[in-house]
Amino acid sequence: MKEQHWYKSHVRAIEREECISLLRTQKVGRIAFTDDSGPDTIPVNFALDGEDVLIATTGYSAMARAATGARVAFEVDEIDPFTESGWSVVIRGHAHRESPFAPMDNPPYPWAEGNRGYVIRIKPDAVTGRRLVPA
Amino acid sequence: MKEQHWYKSHVRAIEREECISLLRTQKVGRIAFTDDSGPDTIPVNFALDGEDVLIATTGYSAMARAATGARVAFEVDEIDPFTESGWSVVIRGHAHRESPFAPMDNPPYPWAEGNRGYVIRIKPDAVTGRRLVPA
Repeated sequence: MKEQHWYKSHVRAIEREECISLLRTQKVGRIAFTDDSGPDTIPVNFALDGEDVLIATTGYSAMARAATGARVAFEVDEIDPFTESGWSVVIRGHAHRESPFAPMDNPPYPWAEGNRGYVIRIKPDAVTGRRLVPA
Repeated sequence: MKEQHWYKSHVRAIEREECISLLRTQKVGRIAFTDDSGPDTIPVNFALDGEDVLIATTGYSAMARAATGARVAFEVDEIDPFTESGWSVVIRGHAHRESPFAPMDNPPYPWAEGNRGYVIRIKPDAVTGRRLVPA
């Protein structure tokens, strides 16, 4: 039998302003999109431009094909398995290709090799966050 | 200007068997599903039953409503911002409600409070993994 905590963690909503602040603390999130086979998701580096999420990828990636011009979700979290707590922020909105891509102070900076000049901008219409607080 | 690494990390595919092994190392993943507003995603605790992913939730959650009887994706990763590397595994398949839920050795163990007796089983038809290897 695995060890279990005596009390379950509490779920608390996070206000939109704090959601955006939390997004700024992370470099990697997961974009969820839909293709002909249903929902799919993949971790990506991202940058913020105001409340917009920017992702640099390749034009021939499955993500670029499925996400461009479509609705997507984007999720960022920080989890602590020891205390069984953490937070997550989810943005939902429309994604489009940013072309031409205007220079900015902190552009999306992909870790992976390859030509990743295809920039996707997600404009959030819903920003929600949940915090799992140790009991 | 932020610090940047001289060389980009390499992307490598992960074999299915290793994908499943990697899933076993983590307690939290993100399920991606689709509702009337498009793709959505949320982090969840999970358990493995063979290659199936089990998630315990509440029957009235948005995730339970949208995922039950539908195709979903499930993603697990481990990321190291310092070396700009990591791995991710994505399962895609059909999700159904497991009812009645048969006892098992390591059942899904939700961290969050509340009645989470609604168990979703994801049967993977595609298991893919990527490793980002430091250059």
